[in-house]
Formats: sequence, C-alpha cells, structure tokens
Amino acid sequence: MQIDPHALLAVAREEAELGKAEGGVPIGAALFDSSGRLLGRGHNRRVQDGDPSLHAETTAFRNAGRRPHYRDTIMVTTLSPCWYCSGLVRQFGIPRVIIGEAKTFSGGHDWLAEHDVRIDVLDDPACTALMEEFIETRPQLWFEDIGVPSTSD
Amino acid sequence: MQIDPHALLAVAREEAELGKAEGGVPIGAALFDSSGRLLGRGHNRRVQDGDPSLHAETTAFRNAGRRPHYRDTIMVTTLSPCWYCSGLVRQFGIPRVIIGEAKTFSGGHDWLAEHDVRIDVLDDPACTALMEEFIETRPQLWFEDIGVPSTSD
Repeated sequence: MQIDPHALLAVAREEAELGKAEGGVPIGAALFDSSGRLLGRGHNRRVQDGDPSLHAETTAFRNAGRRPHYRDTIMVTTLSPCWYCSGLVRQFGIPRVIIGEAKTFSGGHDWLAEHDVRIDVLDDPACTALMEEFIETRPQLWFEDIGVPSTSD
Repeated sequence: MQIDPHALLAVAREEAELGKAEGGVPIGAALFDSSGRLLGRGHNRRVQDGDPSLHAETTAFRNAGRRPHYRDTIMVTTLSPCWYCSGLVRQFGIPRVIIGEAKTFSGGHDWLAEHDVRIDVLDDPACTALMEEFIETRPQLWFEDIGVPSTSD
C-alpha cells in the first residue's frame, strides 16, 4: 500500500490542535506501522499532566504500548523532533520520520538522517502557523519545553 | 558542598533493586540538583506499567516535575544511558551524568561527553551484577527495552 505522508500528518496535526485547545504545547505525533495502520497517537502533555517527559512523540510512542521492536514503524510529528525525541527514534530503530515543519525549531532530524533514518519534511503551513502563534504568545512555556533557560530565570 | 558520586548512585541503585523486586527491568535513576538535593527518582516501568517510554532516567525526570531549566542538575543512573535517555540529557541541558556502569551496555555517554556533558562512570560492581543477571535470565525483555529485534521475532 502506498503511504500518503500528508494523510498521516493530518492525524498528528489533529493531536496538535487538541493540545492547543487544552491550553498546552501545540505539538502532535502519531506512530504508524509501515502499511499506514495507526499504532498510537498523542500530543505534548507538559501543561495538562504537569509531566515534562511527555513530548508529542513520546506520548504517541507510549500510547502504542509495548512492542517487541519498531523496525516496521513510522513516526509522524508536526515539528522537527528535539534531541530527546530524536534519541527515542534512534534507540528504538524507527526507520522513518515524517515531519510537519522544521522552520520554527530544528532538532535532531539531520542527525537521524545521517544514521539512515528516512526523513520527510513536509513544510506544512498549518503546522508552522500553530508553532508561530504559540512561540509568539507563550515564549516561557516554549523555552521550558525545550530546556532553554529564559532571560527572566 | 562536595558531591559524593557513590552516595548519589546508591539512590539510583536502590531504585534498580526495587525494579528487580517488582519483576521489571533492573535499572534505576535519580535527578539531583548541583548541591546533591534529590529532585526525583525512579526506575524502568516497562513491565510494571506496560509503558515503553518509562526508562529509568525518564521516570526520574518525570518524577522531578516541571522545572524552568536543568542547568543546575545531575542525572544519576545505574547504567550507561541509551540514545533515548542521552537525548533527554542533551535536550534539557543537564550538565552532568553519573553512571553506575557501562560494561553490560554502552549508550550515548561518549556522545554526551563530546557535547560538554561531564560524565563519571563509577564501575560499580553491584550495578554490573544486576544487569548481568537480568540479561542472562530475561534476554527477550532486555532486547525489547532497547529496541533490538530478538532472533525469535
């Protein structure tokens, strides 16, 4: 079956919109198998659960439950994965990552490509708009989410 | 205040022992501030919670709750951190990692050292013994925990 990256991204973007509606960090992700079957989906839950470990990708990974391996999976995320989430992809041998946008933040996706992970950056305007609005209106929360000390600390 | 790395490691090792007693992956971790005050501790919870996202380091990080930044913290772990947990350390700017042992598994600690993270490997025999017994008796669970397809898959 042919995978439509934009159709998979739509699921992650829906998660990002849910996160925004809940007052959280508007980043969403979903884990699929290589035939496009959804295994787990989720969004950043820093605000909602007070849990700094739940980035969008780790939430989707968690919601997919235990698996013997990940060599037949695709991680889809609205934003370039940070080092934490890039490390997840590398450690668990996820062979492909589909990324909504990497304009507002660039994490470890080039590093993953160097380690033979297939990377598709879709330059999705809706994903970019979500992050631009978020960074503009809630910079402190964004800095906290990526571990960057803000000027007021 | 002078930090005693072995005293901090004892907390992580206690967590690893708890994980073993619960039938889980016997890896423990704890996050301290630079003065040695405990911020959060925990152990791998793959078996206990059915949650593949909760490695020892991510559990300790989670249990420390939300923080504006991590530039004054120390991550202590019984085992060399895998790429997932090394990515956590790099993304959140944790400047120091104390490691019980790196004989039974070597993750991303050299990479962290290249990125100016202070790394101390303590070569703790009790940490090594915990992992040696675990890998010997439950190889499938270990492979699953680090995303390595086992021969029977």
